[in-house]
Amino acid sequence: MTSFHAFLGCSIDGFIAGPNGELDWLLWFDERLGEYGYDAFFSSIDALVMGRASYDAIRQQSPDLYDGTPVYVLSRTLPAGPQPEMGRSRVTVYADLATLRAALAADGIKRAYVDGGRTVQTFLAEGLLSDIVITRVPVLIGEGVPLFGPVPHPVPAELVETRELGAGAVQSTYRFSPGRE
Amino acid sequence: MTSFHAFLGCSIDGFIAGPNGELDWLLWFDERLGEYGYDAFFSSIDALVMGRASYDAIRQQSPDLYDGTPVYVLSRTLPAGPQPEMGRSRVTVYADLATLRAALAADGIKRAYVDGGRTVQTFLAEGLLSDIVITRVPVLIGEGVPLFGPVPHPVPAELVETRELGAGAVQSTYRFSPGRE
Repeated sequence: MTSFHAFLGCSIDGFIAGPNGELDWLLWFDERLGEYGYDAFFSSIDALVMGRASYDAIRQQSPDLYDGTPVYVLSRTLPAGPQPEMGRSRVTVYADLATLRAALAADGIKRAYVDGGRTVQTFLAEGLLSDIVITRVPVLIGEGVPLFGPVPHPVPAELVETRELGAGAVQSTYRFSPGRE
Repeated sequence: MTSFHAFLGCSIDGFIAGPNGELDWLLWFDERLGEYGYDAFFSSIDALVMGRASYDAIRQQSPDLYDGTPVYVLSRTLPAGPQPEMGRSRVTVYADLATLRAALAADGIKRAYVDGGRTVQTFLAEGLLSDIVITRVPVLIGEGVPLFGPVPHPVPAELVETRELGAGAVQSTYRFSPGRE
């Protein structure tokens, strides 16, 4: 079985990007946070899971971002199956969550990094996310792409750790109980 | 000049109440947080500022909540002017922010406690809120009354303090620069 993990930055008001995908306000903090755990997190995972929006953005802007780690794209609009390599990462598209999970299991993926707002929301709503690391930077942006979305019922979480980073960011790690549905 | 301060509890996904005003999920944490600073905060303020929704709810459910501290209601739908006392608190309705602020100043109010989602959003959007204490309890509720709303432009904040409370709640205090607009 594959477990699913998220690691995201957001504003105080819970946006992970501006209304047109702007990330400048978030990236401004990147070098000011100090050691914020991304490298350790990234080295703990075996694969990426993301939606089309993140896939398109990364393919265009930083195809080498994942350094060879395989990428599983969840998309109903892209043709299912293998895509051209992105940097050194193999990329495969799956049309639904069940097929994607079966492929991850068949490929022996133990820990998958779920990225992108919509995809994280899907995994949360399905009760599949094991944990999330949220790094809140100290700004309100008022509108944009929200980190969280609807859930079928309240989802309790367990706070694993919270800490203050540089520049007034607060990083909190929450654990969920996946498979509770 | 009066300064404005907020102190709110919310879910991880930023809701201060459920879709019908439900607070049970939040109040469940109340006795589990340990000392969370409300008494010190409340004793630091001279008056309450709230909208009609909060006023109606408190008047009906716990009129003595504010223990004699005067209440200034911001409402375009209630008739402006004095209302019946709520518990031992005098209550006055103001139709707009300018009139309300003038009354606070005339009454010598130094620090006002702004409560209720919509009213906190108004003060934030107007650049009038000095600081906010946010206590995030570890649950996602998915829908409800949001703590934050639109702002005319990004609002930077300064993290004053963050700490872990009981039951996995995280309390962060942010300072704004009121009057920047």
